[in-house]
Amino acid sequence: MRSTLFDALPDEVSVYEVSPRDGLQNEAITVPTPRKVRLIEALVAAGLKRLEVTSFVSPKWVPQLADAVELCRLLGHPGGVSFSALCPNRQGLDRALATELDEVAVFLSASEGHNRRNVNKTIAETLDVFRELVPAGVAAGRRVRGYLSTLWGCPFEGEVDPARGVEITRQLLEMGCYEVSLGDTIGIGTPRQTKRILEMFLAEFPAERLALHFHDTRGTALANVVVGLEMGIRTFDASVGGLGGCPYAPGAAGNLATEDLVFTLHGMGIETGIDLDKLVEAGRVASAIVGHDLSGKVHRAGVRALRR
Amino acid sequence: MRSTLFDALPDEVSVYEVSPRDGLQNEAITVPTPRKVRLIEALVAAGLKRLEVTSFVSPKWVPQLADAVELCRLLGHPGGVSFSALCPNRQGLDRALATELDEVAVFLSASEGHNRRNVNKTIAETLDVFRELVPAGVAAGRRVRGYLSTLWGCPFEGEVDPARGVEITRQLLEMGCYEVSLGDTIGIGTPRQTKRILEMFLAEFPAERLALHFHDTRGTALANVVVGLEMGIRTFDASVGGLGGCPYAPGAAGNLATEDLVFTLHGMGIETGIDLDKLVEAGRVASAIVGHDLSGKVHRAGVRALRR
Repeated sequence: MRSTLFDALPDEVSVYEVSPRDGLQNEAITVPTPRKVRLIEALVAAGLKRLEVTSFVSPKWVPQLADAVELCRLLGHPGGVSFSALCPNRQGLDRALATELDEVAVFLSASEGHNRRNVNKTIAETLDVFRELVPAGVAAGRRVRGYLSTLWGCPFEGEVDPARGVEITRQLLEMGCYEVSLGDTIGIGTPRQTKRILEMFLAEFPAERLALHFHDTRGTALANVVVGLEMGIRTFDASVGGLGGCPYAPGAAGNLATEDLVFTLHGMGIETGIDLDKLVEAGRVASAIVGHDLSGKVHRAGVRALRR
Repeated sequence: MRSTLFDALPDEVSVYEVSPRDGLQNEAITVPTPRKVRLIEALVAAGLKRLEVTSFVSPKWVPQLADAVELCRLLGHPGGVSFSALCPNRQGLDRALATELDEVAVFLSASEGHNRRNVNKTIAETLDVFRELVPAGVAAGRRVRGYLSTLWGCPFEGEVDPARGVEITRQLLEMGCYEVSLGDTIGIGTPRQTKRILEMFLAEFPAERLALHFHDTRGTALANVVVGLEMGIRTFDASVGGLGGCPYAPGAAGNLATEDLVFTLHGMGIETGIDLDKLVEAGRVASAIVGHDLSGKVHRAGVRALRR
């Protein structure tokens, strides 16, 4: 039997690390800034080149990330590495632009219910804010990434119409975002749905403008990544150790673990520029600074157990 | 962009439950027989129709399964459900044939190192035993299933030549096995490798004679299942809650969790005859009788969190 599956896999894929922001944001304890630096440095040492390190949200909302300016100052600007931070509004963007960050990011949801709970605005109101924010970031010489959440399903509304997501993505790209990361925020997506969603998006946008951000809440993240690879996507978000949990189901897994993603990509002959042994070390740092076990499977098995 | 991915998915897939044997065998505590019955009855109530319930190995080797005859007696012979048990040798087969089991199973490894550690025989010696065992099982009116372990990699030898596995499978089918379950015993397989292995097997055997048995040690099990589905495989082994762990890496995940498999299949529009809510209940029974948390992701997230 001859199948065309995987005939057009890429030689290389870009892994976008989100643990310092998306991961830590879901942790109960506030991690001291020097420990965040230690985690980020371990991730950079493992070969990660694109990292979302913090968020310039109000410290009242997310105390974990109140040290955003100080963290960026301590991190500096290592060569060949791009640090990014979320900016929900003009005030956040202005704080970000005072740092050396290469990149900033804007975020909204594909469902009104989740967007309302997250930023207390309608999707239209959020896009109105971004119409000022994104060009301002670009004008200041920063790349601007867009995040579109809950595209596979919403914890408040259930099913989400992907056509709505296509329209939001079009606007984000037109505003000046170089890439939009499509998120399965509650980890409810299955592979056939992923194919259906990507067919709709790839009918409108080149694959290079899209990234995929899967959560592993029900174990489907890697299966969805494989569909994304097969459909031409070349950037995947992940969080070391699976750091992050799921805010809607205590004890459940959240972000796809970077180690699981990298193990799979390397096993498929796809380069990432990442040293898996060092990445597993970074996962141990992550586990140590939050003080509990993480859910990532390679993290738990240990990469050495792979080898003789 | 138009892709043929998933164009030939089946309407229905058969899920083969292995938790009562493969799962419990890796547990430290010996579970009392009535609790095993409770687990198996919960699994049958959830709609599972094919279950490997025990093994007729020497009680000296596996004390957990020393109650095989008594367990089979207590389970009886519910309509529409097929119970199976492993039989490593003639003595085990004779004990199995004294029960009402519909099905028995033989097992060996695709690598000499693992087979030697597991049954203290070469692969050739093991096949010699099966050449008597399998026809004897068939002659006694039982279906005989074959298991081929370590096909994706061996904990002692590393890489395994799939051509060797093809040859072993050919012999198992010729002896009278109705199906051979191909196992990634250490959960090291990645999707491209799965495609390569299945291409070799499907060049020789019809898909209906093959099943896939993935371990989720590095999170890749569902991604490999998706490749199997795409390549035409219609039977997948799994263990409720991911019961079982990995004997080579303490704390790591072992078997693919049945709930994660069923969630994914249903999400892809593929029927299994299984009630996911009741399956999650059975996973709670499994967790309770072994006295610890299980690694399955849907098990941890809870199926209700999927719905509004």
